[in-house]
Amino acid sequence: MTGPEPGRLSSADDAAFLDDFTIMSSFGATANQGVDRQAGTAADGQTRDWFVGLLRSNGFTVHCDPVGNIFGLLELVPGAPYVLLGSHLDSQPLAGRFDGAYGVLAAVHAVIRTRDQFAVDGVTPTFNLAVVDWFNEEGCRFKPSMMGSGVFTGLLDLQKVLATTDAQGVTVAEALHAINGVGTFTPPPIAAYSEIHIEQGRSMDDAGTTIGLVSSTWSARKYEIVVRGEQSHSGATRMKDRRDALLGAAKVIVAVNDLLAEFDEEAVHTSISELYVAPNSPVTVAREVRFLVDIRARESELLAEAYAHFQDAIALIEAECRVSIDEIGASVWESGPFLESGIELSRSSAEALGYSNDRVLTLAGHDATNMKEIVPTVMLFVPSAAGGISHNEREFTSDADLLAGINVFTHVVTRLALGELPESLSSLEATATR
Amino acid sequence: MTGPEPGRLSSADDAAFLDDFTIMSSFGATANQGVDRQAGTAADGQTRDWFVGLLRSNGFTVHCDPVGNIFGLLELVPGAPYVLLGSHLDSQPLAGRFDGAYGVLAAVHAVIRTRDQFAVDGVTPTFNLAVVDWFNEEGCRFKPSMMGSGVFTGLLDLQKVLATTDAQGVTVAEALHAINGVGTFTPPPIAAYSEIHIEQGRSMDDAGTTIGLVSSTWSARKYEIVVRGEQSHSGATRMKDRRDALLGAAKVIVAVNDLLAEFDEEAVHTSISELYVAPNSPVTVAREVRFLVDIRARESELLAEAYAHFQDAIALIEAECRVSIDEIGASVWESGPFLESGIELSRSSAEALGYSNDRVLTLAGHDATNMKEIVPTVMLFVPSAAGGISHNEREFTSDADLLAGINVFTHVVTRLALGELPESLSSLEATATR
Repeated sequence: MTGPEPGRLSSADDAAFLDDFTIMSSFGATANQGVDRQAGTAADGQTRDWFVGLLRSNGFTVHCDPVGNIFGLLELVPGAPYVLLGSHLDSQPLAGRFDGAYGVLAAVHAVIRTRDQFAVDGVTPTFNLAVVDWFNEEGCRFKPSMMGSGVFTGLLDLQKVLATTDAQGVTVAEALHAINGVGTFTPPPIAAYSEIHIEQGRSMDDAGTTIGLVSSTWSARKYEIVVRGEQSHSGATRMKDRRDALLGAAKVIVAVNDLLAEFDEEAVHTSISELYVAPNSPVTVAREVRFLVDIRARESELLAEAYAHFQDAIALIEAECRVSIDEIGASVWESGPFLESGIELSRSSAEALGYSNDRVLTLAGHDATNMKEIVPTVMLFVPSAAGGISHNEREFTSDADLLAGINVFTHVVTRLALGELPESLSSLEATATR
Repeated sequence: MTGPEPGRLSSADDAAFLDDFTIMSSFGATANQGVDRQAGTAADGQTRDWFVGLLRSNGFTVHCDPVGNIFGLLELVPGAPYVLLGSHLDSQPLAGRFDGAYGVLAAVHAVIRTRDQFAVDGVTPTFNLAVVDWFNEEGCRFKPSMMGSGVFTGLLDLQKVLATTDAQGVTVAEALHAINGVGTFTPPPIAAYSEIHIEQGRSMDDAGTTIGLVSSTWSARKYEIVVRGEQSHSGATRMKDRRDALLGAAKVIVAVNDLLAEFDEEAVHTSISELYVAPNSPVTVAREVRFLVDIRARESELLAEAYAHFQDAIALIEAECRVSIDEIGASVWESGPFLESGIELSRSSAEALGYSNDRVLTLAGHDATNMKEIVPTVMLFVPSAAGGISHNEREFTSDADLLAGINVFTHVVTRLALGELPESLSSLEATATR
């Protein structure tokens, strides 16, 4: 390893992080220690404004791109590509205060520590450093999730995203405008991306592992389903004349859960958690129900098998309930490995600082899942306590684990800035030959 | 039979009714020949304003009571009690143009015809005549249904009703104020109530019956149910750690439908048609689902039996899905007969005019179901075509059946005004002895 020894951190640094984390957690705070700041809401806007202030007061140049991603740049090497670090500040409704927000703040602190250490040691790194708050990672108010990083990586179309509406008909463009969250920034070349996040599962907590080296993502499919029946009087209509879209939807929900019986325990995850009924009146049989079926599996092959079973179930329910069931859209995230060199870099950083570590899969989607498709990407986890519960006010990670995560993340950021990830250097060559 | 011979109607009367029906159907009209005028909306307000104008231009005195019921009075005998005729102008979302509105307009026209015939024949009736538009019979925007007649009959508390909110938090009081729909009127003594309505079922159409003599209501129970689970990440949470409120709700919906297997075909009706999910996000297992379970049966005993099966199913689902399922409210309408003397009066009127007729049950609730608990009540049906579909834009009754209904209803109204329903006379005695 060349350059300074990273990870020499004072308790003042730790206190500064925890203080900032407390302030950040006050925006959109809920009664039970959680936060509620869905993308583009006032609470999201307040958190973003505070984040911009934090960046500026620490010497970052701040820019916003057309989809509301906020970038804080720290140019250490004029003209060099950037190592980008970040996550997201938005949350689910009544959610935990760690998810996403921890990673954004960890990025800011890791970059500050790295920059300060470079200054102390008189080191000029290979790459510049930047942090990012990706807009709307959660996808609850506006679908799909991972929206900001999706546009950044070209997976999603900007104009289509800006025209996307929430349940009240407000567009992404309007919501971003309302929180003063739109800009024209075009980011500079990115040499590598790294993100630290809470696990949102129980495996690390169960095993007593402090640092998770994210090695692969689960495969995920989200199918937008519409069940169409016929509106009629819920009391007077003969039972055998009914074409009840909500009964059809209920049978799909049960069938999607029953799919699990076909697989090894926990090899496949299924859920339906968002559902709209029309006309949603107590006295009128539902004419239409729309919902999202989320199926995830360790490998894409298992997912394809689950989907085939799902299709079989749908055909039966259509006949039984005299409804039509159509798939009107799907989002696909293939399972895939993270860069082995990045996993090894993380592992050696955790080892150097004496933290227990292990490879871990991510079942949840992350902005890193998008980013790893276009740049060398390294992802770290810290444990989730309380059985790994997340998207819940009870979500919890101890201060010790949060700080351990920042220590390792700072080590990783320093080494990425120094060009220690071999795959990052190709972007340097590309920049040099422009 | 004393007094003039009712039912001598000109084609001019028929044309006047059909013209008014066409105008009335233009308020809140939908693309497919239906209407959408939920209680207290602008479309409901427009229909009511037109109705008030129609009453005034035909010599009625118009009043509004504190819950938004509109009364049009025609005093023919100073100080005498009133025969009240009516139904409701509000509708379900994307509903048919006949339900309720037909009965209100039929009441206006029947009263005008009756009055005019009395004038021609120089007859002074026993009772005065009044028509009513009951507020919020449908109960889709504001629950429960049959709200206006519920307050009128003392079944519902006025202040509680006025404070009831819709899904957006607007109260009944605010909605009524917005359509200028509140008054202070206290109605005079009522000697009898009569209502004509479309069947909203297929039995009369299947049998080729023109006039339905409503002889009994089904028993109905509406249980407000809440399923409580725990919010968590819909992708990352281990399946066996989940407490999915929407999965629990789906199993309840399927179980409520499966109840039918325990009974003779069409002896019991069940439905769930309104449902709310929290937080209703694609990436968060639902923490809570609320819905209304509607169970109806020919007799209250069958309903009690269905409810017992329902309770058994709930206990199993609670254990299976690790959720809690609670009943947090219930509305109850017992089954019960209509007055035999009223059924006989309707039958003889239909016979006198040469229309086929038969006794018929009502599975749907009506304002008459409330009214029959406090005054002698007579209810008539005309057939619903298209398989009896209702609460749907395809709801349909032919002009011939609509006009036949008015002919018989006018005959009935005339006879009620003349005191031919024996039970109505007790109110006359009560008034005379005050």
